[in-house]
Formats: sequence, structure tokens, C-alpha cells
Amino acid sequence: MNQEAIRKYARFAVRMGSAVQPGETLIINAPIHTAAFARLCAEEAYAAGAREVVVHYSDEQLARMRMAYAAEEALDDVKPWIQDSYTSYMKHPSGACMLSISSADPEIYKGIDAARIDRAARARAMAMTEYYKYVMSNQAKWTIVAIPSPSWSAKVFPGLPAEEAEEKLWEAIFSVCRIDENDPVENWQAPLHTMHSRADWLNSLQLDALHITSANGTDLTIGLPKNHIWAGGSEFSPKGVEFLANIPTEEVFTAPDARRTEGVVYSTKPYVFNGSLIEDFWVRFEGGRVVEYHAEKREDLLGMLVSMDEGAARLGEIALVPATSPINRSGILFYNTLFDENASCHIAFGKAYPVCVQGGSDMTAEELDAAGINQSNTHQDVMVGAEDTNIDGITADGRIIPVFRGGVWAE
Amino acid sequence: MNQEAIRKYARFAVRMGSAVQPGETLIINAPIHTAAFARLCAEEAYAAGAREVVVHYSDEQLARMRMAYAAEEALDDVKPWIQDSYTSYMKHPSGACMLSISSADPEIYKGIDAARIDRAARARAMAMTEYYKYVMSNQAKWTIVAIPSPSWSAKVFPGLPAEEAEEKLWEAIFSVCRIDENDPVENWQAPLHTMHSRADWLNSLQLDALHITSANGTDLTIGLPKNHIWAGGSEFSPKGVEFLANIPTEEVFTAPDARRTEGVVYSTKPYVFNGSLIEDFWVRFEGGRVVEYHAEKREDLLGMLVSMDEGAARLGEIALVPATSPINRSGILFYNTLFDENASCHIAFGKAYPVCVQGGSDMTAEELDAAGINQSNTHQDVMVGAEDTNIDGITADGRIIPVFRGGVWAE
Repeated sequence: MNQEAIRKYARFAVRMGSAVQPGETLIINAPIHTAAFARLCAEEAYAAGAREVVVHYSDEQLARMRMAYAAEEALDDVKPWIQDSYTSYMKHPSGACMLSISSADPEIYKGIDAARIDRAARARAMAMTEYYKYVMSNQAKWTIVAIPSPSWSAKVFPGLPAEEAEEKLWEAIFSVCRIDENDPVENWQAPLHTMHSRADWLNSLQLDALHITSANGTDLTIGLPKNHIWAGGSEFSPKGVEFLANIPTEEVFTAPDARRTEGVVYSTKPYVFNGSLIEDFWVRFEGGRVVEYHAEKREDLLGMLVSMDEGAARLGEIALVPATSPINRSGILFYNTLFDENASCHIAFGKAYPVCVQGGSDMTAEELDAAGINQSNTHQDVMVGAEDTNIDGITADGRIIPVFRGGVWAE
Repeated sequence: MNQEAIRKYARFAVRMGSAVQPGETLIINAPIHTAAFARLCAEEAYAAGAREVVVHYSDEQLARMRMAYAAEEALDDVKPWIQDSYTSYMKHPSGACMLSISSADPEIYKGIDAARIDRAARARAMAMTEYYKYVMSNQAKWTIVAIPSPSWSAKVFPGLPAEEAEEKLWEAIFSVCRIDENDPVENWQAPLHTMHSRADWLNSLQLDALHITSANGTDLTIGLPKNHIWAGGSEFSPKGVEFLANIPTEEVFTAPDARRTEGVVYSTKPYVFNGSLIEDFWVRFEGGRVVEYHAEKREDLLGMLVSMDEGAARLGEIALVPATSPINRSGILFYNTLFDENASCHIAFGKAYPVCVQGGSDMTAEELDAAGINQSNTHQDVMVGAEDTNIDGITADGRIIPVFRGGVWAE
């Protein structure tokens, strides 16, 4: 791929994604095979005045080896230094922001005992509570940006020679991330404006619930908490700095009332969970909680997903994405949530973003509970939007307001 | 290079170098370009029963960028998580051992402001005090093993095509590390026995001092502390597990009395300090302390080396290596201390190994001072042995015992 385009993408990720401010530390999470891109991001961050760039490299092959061979007790024992390697910079007076490079083999843990993976994922989530607090409240600005790897490219474009598959994945990424010959910041102004406008409209409605239906069998009602806030497009740190948490992003989202989800919802895309694929599944809710589920493939993993902790069985996000989104129009199944969630309306099991309710960032755990804002150590986005999805908004006084019709915004 | 030989080398490093015991954690320090070798070591460690393998990847290009661009204040601010990422495993009841992969570009910091590098190195050393205590007392078994990188290979074999240079460096490493068609553990028995015998002999002499001379101008007297212990070849953890801290090793070494070095010593090889080369230098001692020095190239760095802290101006090691060592016979200048120090007698500025005096591992800082065992946050090995080096042992009652004659053991 054209090196100048890759440089432009890195600059966009640093300047608009993490929105590194002079004096801030940038922490980059990078799989080692993305080192060249991580270095580009580091260069761009120093050029933007970063105090320091700290890169945490990971190696999915070593991670797989650990899942296969490490002592069970070692999987539980996530040392505090791992969280400190993030939060010690976030606590520093000049603050820190994050840039995570996504480039995983979607099936890196294929064949590994799912119970061990589950055990390790729970232990890690428990050990990262403070980190998630910084990130999910936007105190640490953050972004996720993806680049191809050989294994991921082969999964998305099977049957092609390796180099061609990787080139095609670069092209697809640049297309949906609006990286072209123009300034990407400019390219993003109109779509961000659209998302902000939709969020403003929904905020003005202050709906009591959403009712989602589709011919595939989905018939789901999601209650919304009082004073909920729809967000979308760019987000803002407590200091008011705009950043783009996901590159790309096409969603307008809020936090559901964790106690008021009822009905059945069908998945519309496979879901990569802990390095394995869950396919063709449905989930039934009562009183906000998952009471029944089924998957054609890897139902065991789906069960683990919704039982990681108490909050994992309840919803932490409802996100609206029209079927006209560039990711959906590309027709590509990316096997990567960062992209696939932006092709389709989705729900998330687990932790809600406290910023999605007024005053949420300053609420105690008890106050969040009382407000219906879900708490959990996980957050798993599952795609449920179809080309024919209809969504009705239901107001507190029982009026129906069309929100989605035939997979796209109703107005 | 032959993959089977590389696998054999990794196994040797894990089993005889770090000597991983069942249930122990192995921590690997690996530059990212050595990932394939790090994974081999991890596989071998799990096969040996490791509880967990934790790999800390580093990236010398990012390190260079940090030296060039990070805020000055950030260079001082070495967060505690960095030390914890080692010591938290060493403190665990089942313990941890280390395997460091050396593969640096000897001149990675060429052109960078030496004062910034010095500043960063001091801060890091200060922040790693507890880590060094575990390692230098052998509580955490440790080893260093090297593999070629493109930049290092090009420095050692300039003018050759990249692949050929790398292949030649592999061959040189395997030759001096005794990796061949036989079992390397077997190959190492005789040389280890020789080193242990020399150490036993010197221990039985309990010399008061060594007097080192060479036609190049070296005329140095190094006092030895009471109850000093010569070590060499393999070492032993407090639990009695044998390990090989350096691969290769050809030295027999002890701790000098930090108060009793007198005279002048000339370097016989360039020294890689903080990613730059110091060349053709001499140092003069009075009362154990450096009082004068000169280098033909990078005298500024030599000055920084001996003034990192109070202990850096005094000696922490004297190591005897005959000119017949395989590394010296190879005729190759490796630009890597791991190899070059095993081609030549050397001295180290900075921290002494407490295990080099009886009871040293349990001594307080005050007791170490009283025993003449040098303390510092650095340890820099500098090569001073020549083909004509003579070393006399001087006993407490003034007798002269020939230790080296013409660069080799006298007896």
C-alpha cells in the first residue's frame, strides 16, 4: 500500500482519533506485526507535542501459547503492573490518551479450551477496572484504528494470494475510513455532522423505549433511562477536546436502562469473541436480563459471553447504524467488531458508557445502578441490524415515533 | 540459518541459561525483531514446565525516538510499573527467572544528545534498584543470549550483503557458544569445569591484590576484599540450581575492594555505552576512584559513564579471560559486551555482585560498604586484557604468585 496514504492514516489516528494534546502522553497498544505503523503513529504524536509515547506491544502467538500452556492459577493472576502501565500515565497531571491498533487474527484462539480463555479474560477484566473507568468516561481520550495482518486479510478475502488479500483489505479500510487524496479531517466533517444531528434529535425526544423489529424474528423492546444522552461521531473529553474513539464510526448510541429490555433479538453477523467466532444466534431478555439464548455455532462461547459477570447478561449500549453506512455498502464482512459494528445496528452486553446519562461520569456505582446504567467488566458489541429493521421510538406518554424504517433513519 | 540449530540454541538458553524450573515464571526481554526466537524460547520454557512466560518486547527505534523527542521531564519519570513488571513475578512464591535476548544496533543512539541518554539511563537505573537486587544476588536466575539483527550484523561484517552478514554472525555466535551437532550441555562441561577449577584455585589463594601490566601502558593494582569469592562458568541460585548467566561465558571473576584500585588501565576494545562507541581510552585510579581519563573517541561518554553515580567511578568487577578463549580466537570484534568481554580480561565500573564475598547476599548496604563491595545503579564492563597481559597475584604477606603470563593463565 502507498506509504503516503498509510502516513496520512497514522496522522489522522493521532490527531483526530486520540487527539493528542501538547504535553500529553500517548499510549499505543500495538501487536508486534504492526510495529511499522506504531512507529509512524509515535512520530506523529511527538510532532503533535506529546510528552512521551509509550508503546505496549503484544504478540498474539505468545498469547495463544499462554492460553494453551500456562498454569491455570497463572491465568487468574493478572499482576497490577499491567493496569499501572496505563493508569500511571493517566493519573499524571498532564494526562494520557490511548491509541489501540487492531489487527488480530479473528480466530487466534481456535481450538483452545474456551473455559481457559474465559477464565483469563475475566481475570484481566477484573484487574483493569480502574483503567476502564478512565477510558469509558473519556478522561483518557482513546481511539481504535485497524491495519491488515496476513491472517486477518486471509479471513476477509479467502482464496486470494496473501499480498493481494492484504492490499484489498488496506483498500477497504481506507475506503470506509475516508482516507483518500483529500484531507481526512475534512472528509469526516459531513458524516460527523449527520451523526451529531441524529443524536441531537433523539436527545430532544427523550424517548422512554425503543422497539426493534425485523423479519428475521427480532422483536425487542429496550427501555431507556431518564436523562439518557445519545452520542455519535466524535466525542469530547471532560476538558472539551474532540476525539474519534472508533475509526471508522457510523453509529449513534446511548445506554439502555439495564432493567428494561424485553423480547428476542437475532444476530445478523458472526461475532468474534475471545478469538473465536460465534455464529447465527439469538438471545431472549426478561426484565433486562438474558434468560435464554441459542447459537448455531459456539453456543458455549455465547453462554460464557453473557455470564462473564452479572452485568454481562444485561445491555450496556444500543447503537443505531443505517444500512447505507459505507461499511455495510462495502459488502465486506470484516470479522472485526470495529468495522462490523458500523455496518449494522448493534447492542452491547456489559458495561455502559457513564457519559450516556446526565452526570454519569461523576456517579458512584450505587447511583449508576439507581439510574439503570449497566456495570460490568466487559463490553461486547453484537450486530443485530438488518436491511429491513424497523425501530419505533416510544415516548413516556405512549406515542410512537418512527426512528428507523427499512434499515435506515426514518426522517 | 538452520532452524534446528536455532531451536537447539533456544533450548540451551532456557534449560541451561535461565534454568527454568517447573512452576517458575520465565520473563523474556526481547527486541521485537527477535520475536521468532522469543517464541521458540517461550515454547521451550512451557515444555520445561514454566508456570507462565511473560515477554517484554522492546523496540530500539521507538527508544531512539523517545531519546530524541520526549520531554526532558519524561526521561526522568520512570514509572514504577516498569520495575514491577519484573519483581512482581520474582516476589511470587514460585519465583521467576530471566532470559534477555541481546540483538541491539551497537550505534542505535548515534547522533542523539548524550546528556539526554545519560539522564534517561540514570533515571531507569534508579528506578530498577529492587530488580537489580534480585538479579545480582542470583535470587532470580538470569541469562543473556544474543541473536543477529540486520544492523548489528552489518556493523560486525561491514561490506557484505545483508543476508550473508547475518548468516556469518549466526555462524560466529554458534561457534563461540558451542552450538553444534552435539548436545551443547555436553559441549559446555569441560570449559565450565576449567573455569570452576581456576576459580577454586584463586579462592584457595585468597590474594590481597592483583597487579596487571601490559606493554600498552596498563599498570594497575586492584585490591581484593577479605573473604572474596571468585566465580566463573555456571552460577548457582540460593536454592542451588545451576545456571549460565552469560551465553557465552569464559570468565573467572570476583569483586574488587572498591577502595583499593591504583594506577592506569588502557582499553583494548571499543566499548558500546548507551548505544554509542567509546574508543581507545585509558583511566587512572587513586584510592579506588577514577581521578583521570581520556578517550580518543567520545571522551564525553566516558565521563558520563564514570559519573553516573558515586559507585560508577569505582570498580565492581575484575574478570580474567585468557587470550585463548574461543571469542578472542575468532578474531571478531562483536561490538557487543556479551561477546567482547569474553575475549579479554575486563573490569567493570559500578555495582559488584554481592555473591562475590562471603555472606554478601545477606549484607546491608552499610555492611557491603564496610566489606569494600561497590554499590551503584550501573555495571559497565570494559575490556582491558591484551595478548601480552601479565597478572601477578600479591598475597597478604607480600609474595608474588603468577596468575596470567602473556595473556593466558600462568599455570
